[in-house]
Amino acid sequence: MGYSKTDELAINTIRTLAVDATLEANSGHPGAPMGLAPVSHVLFNKFMTFNPKNPDWVNRDRFVLSNGHGCMLQYALIHLFGYNVTLDDLKNFRQVDSITPGHPEAHDTPGIEVTTGPLGQGFANAVGLAIAQAHTAAVFNKPGFDLINNYTYMIFGDGCAMEGIASEAASTAGHLQLGNLIAIYDDNHISIDGDTKCAFTEDVLKRFESYGWHTQHVENGDSDLEGIEAAIAKAKEVKDKPSVIKLTTTIGFGSKLQGTGGVHGNPLKADDAKQVKEKFGFDPEKTFQVPQEVYDMYHKHAAEGAAAEEEWNKLFEKYGTEHKDLHADLSRRLTGDLPEGWVSKLPTYKPSDPAIASRKLSESVLEAIHDVIPELLSGSADLTGSNNTRWKNAVDFQPPSLGIGEWSGRYLRYGVREHAMAAIMNGLSAYGTIIPAGGTFLNFVSYAAGAVRLSSLSHQRVIYVATHDSIGLGEDGPTHQPIETLAHFRALPNMMVWRPADGNETSAAYYMALTSKETPSILALTRQNLPQLEGSTIEKAIKGGYVALENEKADVTLVSTGSEVSLCLEAVKTLKDQGLTARVVSLPCVEVFDAQDKDYRLSVIPDGIPTLSVEVMSTLGWEKYSHEQFGLNRFGASGPYKEVYKKFEFTPEGIAKRAKLTVDFYKDVKPLRSPLNRAFTQLI
Amino acid sequence: MGYSKTDELAINTIRTLAVDATLEANSGHPGAPMGLAPVSHVLFNKFMTFNPKNPDWVNRDRFVLSNGHGCMLQYALIHLFGYNVTLDDLKNFRQVDSITPGHPEAHDTPGIEVTTGPLGQGFANAVGLAIAQAHTAAVFNKPGFDLINNYTYMIFGDGCAMEGIASEAASTAGHLQLGNLIAIYDDNHISIDGDTKCAFTEDVLKRFESYGWHTQHVENGDSDLEGIEAAIAKAKEVKDKPSVIKLTTTIGFGSKLQGTGGVHGNPLKADDAKQVKEKFGFDPEKTFQVPQEVYDMYHKHAAEGAAAEEEWNKLFEKYGTEHKDLHADLSRRLTGDLPEGWVSKLPTYKPSDPAIASRKLSESVLEAIHDVIPELLSGSADLTGSNNTRWKNAVDFQPPSLGIGEWSGRYLRYGVREHAMAAIMNGLSAYGTIIPAGGTFLNFVSYAAGAVRLSSLSHQRVIYVATHDSIGLGEDGPTHQPIETLAHFRALPNMMVWRPADGNETSAAYYMALTSKETPSILALTRQNLPQLEGSTIEKAIKGGYVALENEKADVTLVSTGSEVSLCLEAVKTLKDQGLTARVVSLPCVEVFDAQDKDYRLSVIPDGIPTLSVEVMSTLGWEKYSHEQFGLNRFGASGPYKEVYKKFEFTPEGIAKRAKLTVDFYKDVKPLRSPLNRAFTQLI
Repeated sequence: MGYSKTDELAINTIRTLAVDATLEANSGHPGAPMGLAPVSHVLFNKFMTFNPKNPDWVNRDRFVLSNGHGCMLQYALIHLFGYNVTLDDLKNFRQVDSITPGHPEAHDTPGIEVTTGPLGQGFANAVGLAIAQAHTAAVFNKPGFDLINNYTYMIFGDGCAMEGIASEAASTAGHLQLGNLIAIYDDNHISIDGDTKCAFTEDVLKRFESYGWHTQHVENGDSDLEGIEAAIAKAKEVKDKPSVIKLTTTIGFGSKLQGTGGVHGNPLKADDAKQVKEKFGFDPEKTFQVPQEVYDMYHKHAAEGAAAEEEWNKLFEKYGTEHKDLHADLSRRLTGDLPEGWVSKLPTYKPSDPAIASRKLSESVLEAIHDVIPELLSGSADLTGSNNTRWKNAVDFQPPSLGIGEWSGRYLRYGVREHAMAAIMNGLSAYGTIIPAGGTFLNFVSYAAGAVRLSSLSHQRVIYVATHDSIGLGEDGPTHQPIETLAHFRALPNMMVWRPADGNETSAAYYMALTSKETPSILALTRQNLPQLEGSTIEKAIKGGYVALENEKADVTLVSTGSEVSLCLEAVKTLKDQGLTARVVSLPCVEVFDAQDKDYRLSVIPDGIPTLSVEVMSTLGWEKYSHEQFGLNRFGASGPYKEVYKKFEFTPEGIAKRAKLTVDFYKDVKPLRSPLNRAFTQLI
Repeated sequence: MGYSKTDELAINTIRTLAVDATLEANSGHPGAPMGLAPVSHVLFNKFMTFNPKNPDWVNRDRFVLSNGHGCMLQYALIHLFGYNVTLDDLKNFRQVDSITPGHPEAHDTPGIEVTTGPLGQGFANAVGLAIAQAHTAAVFNKPGFDLINNYTYMIFGDGCAMEGIASEAASTAGHLQLGNLIAIYDDNHISIDGDTKCAFTEDVLKRFESYGWHTQHVENGDSDLEGIEAAIAKAKEVKDKPSVIKLTTTIGFGSKLQGTGGVHGNPLKADDAKQVKEKFGFDPEKTFQVPQEVYDMYHKHAAEGAAAEEEWNKLFEKYGTEHKDLHADLSRRLTGDLPEGWVSKLPTYKPSDPAIASRKLSESVLEAIHDVIPELLSGSADLTGSNNTRWKNAVDFQPPSLGIGEWSGRYLRYGVREHAMAAIMNGLSAYGTIIPAGGTFLNFVSYAAGAVRLSSLSHQRVIYVATHDSIGLGEDGPTHQPIETLAHFRALPNMMVWRPADGNETSAAYYMALTSKETPSILALTRQNLPQLEGSTIEKAIKGGYVALENEKADVTLVSTGSEVSLCLEAVKTLKDQGLTARVVSLPCVEVFDAQDKDYRLSVIPDGIPTLSVEVMSTLGWEKYSHEQFGLNRFGASGPYKEVYKKFEFTPEGIAKRAKLTVDFYKDVKPLRSPLNRAFTQLI
């Protein structure tokens, strides 16, 4: 306790930096940083331990700004503490190729833990970071070695509080009794539509109580630094519940328009900016002013953080002498590399092996590798028995007091909360010691689209186990049968969409998902059984596409994925009876196939003969790999899956019919180029 | 009060029908129907008014089963009351082309109000139905004419309660004080992962209290019919709050596995089915048994509903004599037709008119038509000032007691709740007297993907006003810039995705959105200004695609949408300087273009010359309309929009460069067919 003039000066420095940066950019959100400067000053200086010279130190306290539009708050703090973000970077706020974009992006800016801005995401990411801490601590901490004991702090606003994803994540955190999670609710009564009373009149703290959170209210968030400090200290004492502190603040504190929507999403007017500076004792004519004593104060705290890391490094070294294997394990995890020899555990299959659903093949992979990849943490959004995401001896991640699991458990029961699951997995991955895999039906990955997008944008190694991947799920019907889903996620940059056709391809999908450190994956898996293919191997499949059946002098190439590959192989026989020769390409992951060299790709989908794609959902995008497309551009049907396939002509005969039409149609075209031959390459 | 043996028999009839239908299908969810038979028996017979002979009667009470997997409950009830669903239809449960699919679909089955199954959707649909009732009543009811006074009843389970969309909708309903909404929470402690204690331990009633709901608990939902009746009666008395009744039930009541996950998602074993029937006094060897006294009881209630409708029809006729215009308005609304002459209100533009952002052009449409289309109910997910969804004199839909709106208001403040907004709009549309339009950023329509999909599947006329449609939004950066979004929704069947290039095209988009009674629309609109095009008219644009600039003997067709069309027109000049002649096609809606006859389509994208598509996001799917594609298959950048466009070469020069490469590349191909020429047509 005990705050000085320098504290006040530091708070006002953050406020004026936010004013200047948004004014310079003529864009951005000054209001939240101005309102949240006091709490963040207290939080970062009195409670948080971190080393700006090594933003990756594993035991640092995590900070998440869920209302990411207020990111000038973070950029100002990061700069003041001495992360590699300069005053020039602040001046380049919201400019092309700067490291200070309009919303904080974890991949590009040191000190930013997760990518936020889309509302509610950061809230759920923070729950993931807190789960990761609890789990990692349970695995690695030993008597005398309290290695992993960081807290996760998170600020969220009214917007986040309204989003369903935050509700899902808050309910999860309460259930899991995450005492290491402390959230500050910026209760400023303003959202873009103005006063929150127009849409948001619920009792937020009562809601969090219902989830099992500890709640407090600090009524004067603008200047009651002691009150803020006491509340955070109290929250830290509560070990068996996450904490939320409702902090009533004045948005745009200091502006003539403070407390109104006018300071939410627009820079202050020039004269208002001047009066703010005068009010706070700054030169109204100057911009981006940082008093030296503010730098001094913040750098001193940074130095304490650096010293804390140094202490930790010593402790960790000593840990290595007493717990050699655990030390090696944690060290390895932090590099992102997998343990040596793990690949040999991947199941392989022969054509004579029985037909198995790829969701079951996925289960076999998890069963085979979970021992050798201890950082793998699986789970499901309440579809465990359908997604087959749980290995036999798995222990649930649960608060031990519930009697149904342990903190060290590696299986997460996400509940029916797909969106939070995805964002929690982003947080788990961002922590640095865990590779998360989570299951739902492919159709309901769409519920999580907002977070899946951020898996891609923020380069998280997250694995979506998406079963029941087509009309092949049968009786559940059109409400559950994906049509648009693969097209959606194939259009998403930095996402691998895998749709394996058999066991070897399923192992290949896991190989790529696990070894791609900066790319998430969606594994689209069947409910129905699939035969083991003659021509498949892991080695071929990890190229994303390969020739599953070659035929010299073929008339047509059939290119397909997943459950339709074996149908295409059947269709080859039907076509043969009709005097046509076909070859078959399996393309389990177009993104990985696209990354192969052109010679290889053209050997798979060659010039000279037409190509027909076969996939039992939207044809959108298949024109890139084929001359003609057989798909399903309508909703499916409820019934036994073989009858549903038949209804839509996904049979050897239905494929053969279209292959013949394709051959006939392209007979006169010279030269008939592979669709892979393009006039120019796309920008990346 | 006072329940007889027949009541018990009816309840057990529903239970055994659910057992038989799931066993016959060897698929489905018997547990929820068996647990919910008592409450639905009481609810339908003692409280609900409806006429099975006219499922469309506007003042019927609405029933929504949010846990749609329990739909055998609904099918059994619908059959017993005499809707056009036969015992054979029940025997065809979950079979191809039946009207009893695996989850209830509003479009196909009489008596099903909304399409549910994806969890949480029905909850939010019910909120929409309740809003629609309150609004329609406020507009049409007059002293002596209590025309619209139905209730909306909804059942939801633990799965729905965990979904964020239900949280969003519940908070909204509490804020809006929807006293006409009564929800029953099926507290059976079972979800697919087993006991809900593994993931869901919050205090649900306390949460609903925090939202402002009236709450009750009936502890014995299996047999306390009087308690159930009293609770629903009490809920009806509460006029200023939505009500939730927590009903503790035994899932699969009567089965040997009752109360366990074993009866949730699988049919009963044959011997268990037999013992259930014996227990309930049915012949264990027979299936699909309906005692005549049960039919009699249900048909009697159905007849009372038919009589009630007849009374209502008389009242409505009398209303016509005293309130002629309102009578005509409501009568017209119920046909789905728009008022005569409304089309003339649509704004039109000349090339000399100023450049305007299409989000502002959309606002002008709303301003121009809201008076003449009184069923239009607009709103936004807390982006009113950015989405431009509110006409100047709009009154908010709010409980009058808040002092900021009226029940008759036509502007909904959805809060930052995109997913609930979409599902509420599905409910508003399903009510039958409203056309909802709701705004958010295009990127955040993805948050609502689960509900948007159901707009399409259930044929709802819902309008998504999706502004800030590309990297053209500028500074907000990659977290807000759509890349995959248009591909996603273009792949969704029965969805019109519009991306208008100017004012006339924006009017055309609204024309089609408003007149397509069974198809939802997404209007992708710019933040930045767009010039009015030389060649655009509403008449051309409602074909989905047209020639914006014709050029005899052109070397290349540039096909584009929205903000890139005017860039393409600029590129034509650049190309001319290079000795190449280009023509330009504007394709604001590919789905509508696809519906035109082939001759027209080939006149727009003809044989003989190559076509280059230009759209500043994922190229996925553009191969269908073009030989080569210029797009953005990576995430965007934060900065002023013109600089962002420049970074990615979306300039006349960047387009011209690729057009030239396209022309060169296709010089040797003979015949060069239009991409619209296909070997076969897709199944629809």
